[in-house]
Amino acid sequence: MGIQRRKVSVIGAGFTGATTALMIAQKELADVVLVDIPDQEQPTQGKALDMLEASPVQGFDSNIVGTSNYEDTEGSDLVIITAGMARKPGMSRDDLVATNSKIMKSVTQQIVKYSPETTILVLTNPVDAMTYSVFKESGFPKHRVIGQSGVLDTARFRTFISQELNLSVKDITGFVLGGHGDDMVPLVRYSYAGGIPLEKLISPERLEEIVERTRKGGGEIVGLLGNGSAYYAPAASLTEMAEAILKDQRRVLPAIAYLEGEYGYKDIYLGVPTILGGNGIEQVIELDLTEDEKAQLDKSVESVKHVMNVVE
Amino acid sequence: MGIQRRKVSVIGAGFTGATTALMIAQKELADVVLVDIPDQEQPTQGKALDMLEASPVQGFDSNIVGTSNYEDTEGSDLVIITAGMARKPGMSRDDLVATNSKIMKSVTQQIVKYSPETTILVLTNPVDAMTYSVFKESGFPKHRVIGQSGVLDTARFRTFISQELNLSVKDITGFVLGGHGDDMVPLVRYSYAGGIPLEKLISPERLEEIVERTRKGGGEIVGLLGNGSAYYAPAASLTEMAEAILKDQRRVLPAIAYLEGEYGYKDIYLGVPTILGGNGIEQVIELDLTEDEKAQLDKSVESVKHVMNVVE
Amino acid sequence: MGIQRRKVSVIGAGFTGATTALMIAQKELADVVLVDIPDQEQPTQGKALDMLEASPVQGFDSNIVGTSNYEDTEGSDLVIITAGMARKPGMSRDDLVATNSKIMKSVTQQIVKYSPETTILVLTNPVDAMTYSVFKESGFPKHRVIGQSGVLDTARFRTFISQELNLSVKDITGFVLGGHGDDMVPLVRYSYAGGIPLEKLISPERLEEIVERTRKGGGEIVGLLGNGSAYYAPAASLTEMAEAILKDQRRVLPAIAYLEGEYGYKDIYLGVPTILGGNGIEQVIELDLTEDEKAQLDKSVESVKHVMNVVE
Amino acid sequence: MGIQRRKVSVIGAGFTGATTALMIAQKELADVVLVDIPDQEQPTQGKALDMLEASPVQGFDSNIVGTSNYEDTEGSDLVIITAGMARKPGMSRDDLVATNSKIMKSVTQQIVKYSPETTILVLTNPVDAMTYSVFKESGFPKHRVIGQSGVLDTARFRTFISQELNLSVKDITGFVLGGHGDDMVPLVRYSYAGGIPLEKLISPERLEEIVERTRKGGGEIVGLLGNGSAYYAPAASLTEMAEAILKDQRRVLPAIAYLEGEYGYKDIYLGVPTILGGNGIEQVIELDLTEDEKAQLDKSVESVKHVMNVVE
Repeated sequence: MGIQRRKVSVIGAGFTGATTALMIAQKELADVVLVDIPDQEQPTQGKALDMLEASPVQGFDSNIVGTSNYEDTEGSDLVIITAGMARKPGMSRDDLVATNSKIMKSVTQQIVKYSPETTILVLTNPVDAMTYSVFKESGFPKHRVIGQSGVLDTARFRTFISQELNLSVKDITGFVLGGHGDDMVPLVRYSYAGGIPLEKLISPERLEEIVERTRKGGGEIVGLLGNGSAYYAPAASLTEMAEAILKDQRRVLPAIAYLEGEYGYKDIYLGVPTILGGNGIEQVIELDLTEDEKAQLDKSVESVKHVMNVVE
Repeated sequence: MGIQRRKVSVIGAGFTGATTALMIAQKELADVVLVDIPDQEQPTQGKALDMLEASPVQGFDSNIVGTSNYEDTEGSDLVIITAGMARKPGMSRDDLVATNSKIMKSVTQQIVKYSPETTILVLTNPVDAMTYSVFKESGFPKHRVIGQSGVLDTARFRTFISQELNLSVKDITGFVLGGHGDDMVPLVRYSYAGGIPLEKLISPERLEEIVERTRKGGGEIVGLLGNGSAYYAPAASLTEMAEAILKDQRRVLPAIAYLEGEYGYKDIYLGVPTILGGNGIEQVIELDLTEDEKAQLDKSVESVKHVMNVVE
Repeated sequence: MGIQRRKVSVIGAGFTGATTALMIAQKELADVVLVDIPDQEQPTQGKALDMLEASPVQGFDSNIVGTSNYEDTEGSDLVIITAGMARKPGMSRDDLVATNSKIMKSVTQQIVKYSPETTILVLTNPVDAMTYSVFKESGFPKHRVIGQSGVLDTARFRTFISQELNLSVKDITGFVLGGHGDDMVPLVRYSYAGGIPLEKLISPERLEEIVERTRKGGGEIVGLLGNGSAYYAPAASLTEMAEAILKDQRRVLPAIAYLEGEYGYKDIYLGVPTILGGNGIEQVIELDLTEDEKAQLDKSVESVKHVMNVVE
Repeated sequence: MGIQRRKVSVIGAGFTGATTALMIAQKELADVVLVDIPDQEQPTQGKALDMLEASPVQGFDSNIVGTSNYEDTEGSDLVIITAGMARKPGMSRDDLVATNSKIMKSVTQQIVKYSPETTILVLTNPVDAMTYSVFKESGFPKHRVIGQSGVLDTARFRTFISQELNLSVKDITGFVLGGHGDDMVPLVRYSYAGGIPLEKLISPERLEEIVERTRKGGGEIVGLLGNGSAYYAPAASLTEMAEAILKDQRRVLPAIAYLEGEYGYKDIYLGVPTILGGNGIEQVIELDLTEDEKAQLDKSVESVKHVMNVVE
């Protein structure tokens, strides 16, 4: 029947979801279906149409539609979940977890119904637990349910290092393990500028400040915006992971993966280095950790487990 | 002194301004300074930082800063004005014109102070009159003050035709004269799919419907969004014009240009086909019009003149 | 099984074949298998390896291999034939046709054996007849056997017009029918600069000179090079057609298509406007011709028929 | 006066020079002037025209001209030298050096005459000595005369590692010091896959084999081609360095730089890590070497010095 375009569905048409749709379309990775709840159907269609009207000028040839009907997601090659609530004033963290977990379940049922062979990429916070929730609800094999956190954390780290050294971001690499944000375990010894370990270029004290700024990177944007949270860099991070999968690139990227003994942990979704390709997570890469790193990772795992318990 | 990067300042850090900043950075056309009023300085910095944090992942190497201090715009190669109010319920159109005209004047003074040799690109509505206002206030030669409307109008037209014929947007072209939106004068006979005049492919009635949809294209998005107006396609349009200027491409693009007798009009900013390059508007292209087209254009000119009178 | 990359095989590893392989890889359209005869296997491998070694620097993620073994082409989504001899001194045109026709047959048998569902794109000259030869030998449906000539002819025309008017090539379009080169039938009335018919911008005499230069465009390069013929623009043309198919773009592009009554001709491969997409040629677009255009096209058809007879 | 395009001249229109011109144009980094000797003027014009005719289809908007007249290079922002002879059978290495050194001198005089403020990038072999020769003849400050070798050597290394580990080239980095090819000093401990030191992923024996293959990487292509040498990866390497300079990126890239005490050497051009930006080489980055690495580098320096003596 000929060659057909790839199809990606993005669940949640807030700023992050919409920006992700745009970036996927700009790269002509796939046609995009942007999905939100019925109440938001018209604004979702408005965003999709506005993006589509950018396509003749930007020169990309991807279709983008907005909908609240999951039938339109049928046969997706990849589904990206950005839906979920942000924490509101007076809301406990556990309430947030409970609410978003419920959203994950309902969204996952719809995804599985219309795209039983797809791969799912999760952004919703708290992302480790939400990815776990999608995994359980979907019944999918572990390599097809993936969470995003490390690409974004390292993107922020790379930006700060680039500014510190006044060097191109293209030559800065970073490396993190563990949970998102506060629970992030940076492996500074695996982070470089032009291949040169950062420890040779920046003092330990300054490096620690930059690591700390990275940990609080999401909060920094929230604080500046006053209202709302980051979406450009999160969307770019999702797009990079999507590209690795859709083009079967076998990239080495940090991802939230299901562990079955790797790094000494079981039955948990945790941020680790992985190989991302056409099969989703094709491999978890295991590294030797120093005692200190292992201790930090243990702490991160504890924190993730705590949230996972709330989910269940 | 070596080679230096281009510099673009975007005035107004709302959705359109921010998206324009992103698109210029993605194409590595220039470093970008995103400017808003002091009250909005922190959110502006937040948006700029969030975009910058997308750069390692998207692989672009442009700096983006947010500020409320016009000193940071010093030496810009190009300044894009997206600042201005949207019409609020109960506000008369003339009140809007008066308010935005005041904003144009104050913004222009700052621009001229720090970048006396720059080119200015205006998006703020009503765009014909606002461009005129910037022209007067700046004292710049006419080729360095330019308004945007036709690139966006044709982008929408091309999108609708692409959907109608189920053909790639890459092969659809459109052509408009006159004011933005309702005052738009489409030259359908100069619009094609793969070089074939649309009149040979689509019935006159259906074409008229599509033209009418294009005229109301901004309103369609406003209606769908419920709250706010289009920004993806407007930002893409500004970016294409910016690219033509920054890369000295001598593109044939519709632009709002100052007329001194062309098409029979004087001392007015009007949407016409132009050659856009390193000198801004390098030439206004004159076309023979049919009587009907000329009549429509006259009407459009009257409407623009009316608003210009309010400005003065 | 997950998502798999597209695969393109390029038959003939001369300058055009190699450059086509590079351009397809640069755009990450597919992995590329570059095939030549056993005698040329090592140079073919050398070119493929050299290109692959450019990939880390150019940032593309496509595999490229050189081979003389058609087994390596198995399961190709698209096969591009650039193989064939150039005319040598003392060789009659009919001898050339006979030789290349034999090559087409042998190549086609191998292609069909390993990729029975593929689409075939032919460049080898005389291209109308060679495409016919591949069509007959393959037994493929007509929409999956396509020849290239018009994209290249219009690319040359657009370049010359761009130089004549000192305008960006992005805004120039051209339109041709009929055979390649001397037999080309230009439809100048469907050719534009920024949507404006060229006839309004350039005198008839000058336009005729440019058309004539386009007709002789291949010869102009041969004459300048002294030894060998054009390959950059031919490779770019093949790549654009390949992209339209591999991304299912439904582009409006001129192609050599099999006619069954369109334009009044039957059982012939001829250059006509088509819609190119995931199914290959999805439609032949028919246009009303003037008497003069029709007469020119008849002459072109006669010339193609003559060569086809030599093939048979 | 407005904004003007960048201008790059490429001296030598052989395969590497021509491919470099194409790649620079594809990225719209600058307009390109391709220069060769008067005898080769017509073929040079043929290649330039053929590339230009690819531009409408590839969508790039850069002018490319072929010439033998250095006047056409006037005011270049960057000049790239690829001219020079390849070693012929029966020719001693010293004869080659003498011949190419003479070419460098004559070419440099012309460059300096028409572009006294430009930066010069040298590829001609033996590249360390030829860069030195250009430096001396030009009288330019050291940061504006730069040789290429390490970008190409690491590109090859990255390709081989990517194949060994079946991972995307995007995530592999390499690091070399010293002369080109046989004299290359690889710093494997600064080479990574996804940030993970290669020594943790590949056995020392296998790594040594890959390093050795990299050292002989140019010869491998020569051996396969049978006639001629690599040009795709060399052209891509020059283009990346050109981009770093033309976009003032401050990339961390290996380059052949003039040393005045760095690494303990003086008055020599040697491959070292540098920061490349709008000023050319903005900084040489010094690293602590192990004794073994220092010994290898000493040997490389000796070899370079030997050739430099032949030049003088």
